[in-house]
Amino acid sequence: MNEKPALERLFSPRSIAVVGASADLDKLTGRTVKALLDFGYEGRVYPVNPKYDAVGGLPALKDAAEIPEGTDVAVLSIPARLIPETLEKCGRRKIPFAVVYSSGFAETGDTSLQEEIVSVARRERIRVLGPNCQGFANFAENIPVTFSGALYNAPKPKTGNVAFVSQSGAFGFSSFGVGLDHGVRYRYVVTTGNQCDLDAVECAGHLILDPEVRLLMMYIEGLRDGEAFLNLVKNARERDVAVAILKAGRSPSAKEAAKSHTAALTGDERVWKAVFDQYGVIPMEDIDDIIGIGQLFGSEKRRFEGRTAILTTSGGAGIVMADSLNDQGLSVPEFAPRTKEIVAASIPAFGASRNPVDMTVQISETPEDFQKVLSGVLNDPDIDGVVTSLSMIVGKAGNVMTNETRKSFGSSSKPQAVVWMIDRLHGGEFIDSLKETGVPVFQSFRQCARGLKALKRWGDFLAPERAATDGFSPALDRWKAPLTEYDAKQLLAAYDIPTTKEFLCRDMEEAFDAADTLGFPVAVKGMASSIMHKTEAGVVALDIRNYEELRHAVKKVRSNLASIVSPEEMQGFLVSEMVKGGFECIVGVKRDPVFGPVVAVGLGGIYVEVLGDVSLRHAPIKEDEALRMIRELKGYPFLSGARGRKPRDIIALAKVVSRVSVLAEVEKNLAELDINPVFVLEEGKGVVAADALVVRETDHKTTI
Amino acid sequence: MNEKPALERLFSPRSIAVVGASADLDKLTGRTVKALLDFGYEGRVYPVNPKYDAVGGLPALKDAAEIPEGTDVAVLSIPARLIPETLEKCGRRKIPFAVVYSSGFAETGDTSLQEEIVSVARRERIRVLGPNCQGFANFAENIPVTFSGALYNAPKPKTGNVAFVSQSGAFGFSSFGVGLDHGVRYRYVVTTGNQCDLDAVECAGHLILDPEVRLLMMYIEGLRDGEAFLNLVKNARERDVAVAILKAGRSPSAKEAAKSHTAALTGDERVWKAVFDQYGVIPMEDIDDIIGIGQLFGSEKRRFEGRTAILTTSGGAGIVMADSLNDQGLSVPEFAPRTKEIVAASIPAFGASRNPVDMTVQISETPEDFQKVLSGVLNDPDIDGVVTSLSMIVGKAGNVMTNETRKSFGSSSKPQAVVWMIDRLHGGEFIDSLKETGVPVFQSFRQCARGLKALKRWGDFLAPERAATDGFSPALDRWKAPLTEYDAKQLLAAYDIPTTKEFLCRDMEEAFDAADTLGFPVAVKGMASSIMHKTEAGVVALDIRNYEELRHAVKKVRSNLASIVSPEEMQGFLVSEMVKGGFECIVGVKRDPVFGPVVAVGLGGIYVEVLGDVSLRHAPIKEDEALRMIRELKGYPFLSGARGRKPRDIIALAKVVSRVSVLAEVEKNLAELDINPVFVLEEGKGVVAADALVVRETDHKTTI
Repeated sequence: MNEKPALERLFSPRSIAVVGASADLDKLTGRTVKALLDFGYEGRVYPVNPKYDAVGGLPALKDAAEIPEGTDVAVLSIPARLIPETLEKCGRRKIPFAVVYSSGFAETGDTSLQEEIVSVARRERIRVLGPNCQGFANFAENIPVTFSGALYNAPKPKTGNVAFVSQSGAFGFSSFGVGLDHGVRYRYVVTTGNQCDLDAVECAGHLILDPEVRLLMMYIEGLRDGEAFLNLVKNARERDVAVAILKAGRSPSAKEAAKSHTAALTGDERVWKAVFDQYGVIPMEDIDDIIGIGQLFGSEKRRFEGRTAILTTSGGAGIVMADSLNDQGLSVPEFAPRTKEIVAASIPAFGASRNPVDMTVQISETPEDFQKVLSGVLNDPDIDGVVTSLSMIVGKAGNVMTNETRKSFGSSSKPQAVVWMIDRLHGGEFIDSLKETGVPVFQSFRQCARGLKALKRWGDFLAPERAATDGFSPALDRWKAPLTEYDAKQLLAAYDIPTTKEFLCRDMEEAFDAADTLGFPVAVKGMASSIMHKTEAGVVALDIRNYEELRHAVKKVRSNLASIVSPEEMQGFLVSEMVKGGFECIVGVKRDPVFGPVVAVGLGGIYVEVLGDVSLRHAPIKEDEALRMIRELKGYPFLSGARGRKPRDIIALAKVVSRVSVLAEVEKNLAELDINPVFVLEEGKGVVAADALVVRETDHKTTI
Repeated sequence: MNEKPALERLFSPRSIAVVGASADLDKLTGRTVKALLDFGYEGRVYPVNPKYDAVGGLPALKDAAEIPEGTDVAVLSIPARLIPETLEKCGRRKIPFAVVYSSGFAETGDTSLQEEIVSVARRERIRVLGPNCQGFANFAENIPVTFSGALYNAPKPKTGNVAFVSQSGAFGFSSFGVGLDHGVRYRYVVTTGNQCDLDAVECAGHLILDPEVRLLMMYIEGLRDGEAFLNLVKNARERDVAVAILKAGRSPSAKEAAKSHTAALTGDERVWKAVFDQYGVIPMEDIDDIIGIGQLFGSEKRRFEGRTAILTTSGGAGIVMADSLNDQGLSVPEFAPRTKEIVAASIPAFGASRNPVDMTVQISETPEDFQKVLSGVLNDPDIDGVVTSLSMIVGKAGNVMTNETRKSFGSSSKPQAVVWMIDRLHGGEFIDSLKETGVPVFQSFRQCARGLKALKRWGDFLAPERAATDGFSPALDRWKAPLTEYDAKQLLAAYDIPTTKEFLCRDMEEAFDAADTLGFPVAVKGMASSIMHKTEAGVVALDIRNYEELRHAVKKVRSNLASIVSPEEMQGFLVSEMVKGGFECIVGVKRDPVFGPVVAVGLGGIYVEVLGDVSLRHAPIKEDEALRMIRELKGYPFLSGARGRKPRDIIALAKVVSRVSVLAEVEKNLAELDINPVFVLEEGKGVVAADALVVRETDHKTTI
């Protein structure tokens, strides 16, 4: 295992050829060489352009075929149509990696040219980043391989511990630029564009191997391989690297745009949300979050349980900060008595020593008092972090607040942040100075609060174990035709999921015998593979109370069945017990195009339809996680026994949800499962699946 | 009515005395004179300070008693304890207005000094702004009366059309500074501090008289007089002035802090939200909204119905923008066919001509094409506004995008905004140049989207008419003791609210007669003023089916009643019809400390308890507004007849809600009314109030 990681020479190359480099370093095609020179890249750079003898003072090669063997990376900044032959030349020079900036591939809708470069790259064993990307930057080693304006004529930024991988080139480097401006410190930025070969997940998987990386941020429009992504998240967690993802394309028009922008699958937004929750991924909505989360995770103070102290120089700024924290589910608790004393002794009489602490502007005249307040609240065992919320404190007083905050910043491992309501003219240098020290500093209360919430979410997360699937083997392909309710319940029974007691009957006598065994009331349902909606087809009779009713029901169901399906399609009719006093729930499975099987639980009937109140998880899950799903339902009090209702057997329901998730994982051919209703009986009395619908992937294919 | 508005001379003074002005203009006490000089204030300025002969080159007076008569405003920048005598001197010089910066009044918890200045001010007929405020600025007339750092050593900002009134001095001027930096253009900033006399509502009422004011923004922690506030909102609407309010103190700890920070009432957050919705106030959460809403309403392009075109230079930036708009309920619709053609003809082949339009970075090389795309989408009748979402476009290309955007900005009355993902180094001058032209420009997608949403909300709003209360007169004080259910239903009946048929009986014979008239089943309930929870008291018997059951029920209820209350307190027992087949709802009234009577409707029983699903309105409302309340309920489908259920008589329910709101308005002594349940019968069959609880303000006082 002493081998170098597979992408080592791509992101830490010893030599780079830039094919198509312009001698005009201000042109897009000139900027890569310029940035490498500006940043002081220590490896060899080979500009390749038949038009020039030299580029940026470096001797230029005439053709890609002249690139020295052993060069690590070839950057291709040439028209799309020239890429295949150039890649071939690179292959002959044994160059292992190519970064292809050029546009005009799959993103145009025509995939043929992209397919061509994929086949050349495979043949020549070149790994390709791009095409239609903006390259990457490795700030720790001074390696900017990009034409982005973000690094054009710009000083080398201070290296941090954030790795940012973006499927969109322009979004990646643009949001990097804005983030940098607002105090986020990056180690890597990688853009993957059309991902004809290397994708965002593989690149990110390499970057988290760098022990200096503490936060992985990604901009993702879709994924090719949900499992690889989940592995990435798991590996990152093991290395204590936080993962924060901006999943773009949540809205219909954006989804449409994303589909053609990257060729990856976009999947169901609710599933993305469930997967992020389940695997501890921090969701980012936009650039505001990149700034907030980037700064707070960058400061290395990441243990935070949410109880926040606010120190302010303006009552109003304290109040608005408290509201923002509250909006994000964080608390602004009372201080311990000792803390209260320290605070009260250190602020003016017309201030407020409760949390939020109004230190008033006067605090800037007694910096030692500010330190006392700050260390007092940082030492409070019931406080997990501190936000200093400052108003327009300018001039000397602003300097004092800046210096004292910088001074205290190293003194505690608890997160600290500053929100400073000040304009650039009066406060620009204070803010820059705080950033310089690594103090997270904001002008937006919300950005700060969302960053802190992300810290809490990261800290709170306990990875749920996946349920074991041993002991179960796929059974679904036993059935030839699409499964009837009877078949579906047999499948459930194979996974120890309790179903209604019932008999598949062929004639009246069997029906009478079944009712004898079950006892009245019973239900009668006609079974045939081709019927998906039994009630609408008129083959369901419920609540049959005696033999006379049963006789009529069987006749009616049988004749309705016969009028719809051919005799061969008829499986018979089901005589089932009627379950009494159960609360209707639903349990189901869908196969997400990105993440695969997803299990759902919700309150049944009108509740789920009207209130859309459903919990989702990526399968398989254990019972404790299933119980969490149930407790997350808005209508959970209906199950838990609110207002004198009887508590329901949620343990048994959780068991069924977990079993269904195992079934979903084991049965690879399962497209969809709906158990509706499953009756949840009183506490201790279990649950019963009363109806079930199973659709297989292969059924889909034949029916669509 | 040719009189000047009452506060004219405060906010447009011809002469200002600054008592306590320091000759060191950099000190807090020196800054007001400095700002007046810096801004070129055209009136007279009289510094008052016995320590100096001159302040800022102006001759200094020794004492407030020397201030020339007819001076409009005295600014008091002196220790709190000196305020009363100084106010008295100002009174003797007939100065109509004082601005009191000093702290150390009611905000300390000790109100005595503040009460003293209130009494001096009343006696001397001085209107007071403050104390504990940071003054105000009138930018149109170069009148900065503040010590805030925001105007210290700063150039005079360009005058705009935003008036900002803040109860917090520091928050007001700090957020002003940040807003200004981000492109908001102000006309007035006024801070009211402790509001010992002039409050935020009265000041705002003056500012909206200025026809140049188009947006009133307020920072509010609480209100003394909800009605005055609602009048302000109504007057603003009549003048086409939008009102946007940051209501601080939503969260528990913030509410606690706000209570002592301003002395005003904070009320119930849900009521604030309902009032904002009902009267068309734009809610602001934080400074982000001040920036977004301030810029978009400042551009004078305020007609916007939500259908937005996105033009982008980066697929990713377009997708994230579409997501942000969608999050705010705005749409990114398809273009008309003609627009599609224009767009497709003007962008590169590898761009995307759907909405969001990916123009690609190449658009900066053909500015005429950018103009074609822009005017194409602006002319689309199905598009209400355009956001240009730009990536890191630097140098010459950035200049092109800036200039073309500026050029087009005047060409359409539809709102336009730019979100530009760029850092200050590369894009600062572009952004400043766009702001200069008045183009709303953002670095946050969300800020832009929330600003646009506010435009839509403003445009969509149709003021609901208040229900007439004529024909009804207060009846509540007819009752001496607290009202029983029987009394409460009599009150409802007086407002034509249908109640269960029932009889108040005194003995068994009356009970039998009542059942005769009503028909079985009936209910029996014991009535006594002192019993609020009848079921718990064991004086309720439901679903009585025959005379035998009735006899037992009456005996039991009567004996239970007798065991709790004295014979004088006993009113009798109620024999009522049992209503069948109704859907349980609740209708209620609460008296909010800020806004007064608020009417509520919700689904009954467990729904409201579990799901908190209740609609609120400030009373009184008409039936159409009551119908909107009902339709807003998450559980509305239960009433409207979802999934084959019977539709309910929501018209009759709306009538009751409106009637209850009229009752709430007429009965000033009503503290609380709960009709629970009101049974909503099938469509056309009406509703019936089956139980009701009335609590009067005066009952409260006697029982608590």
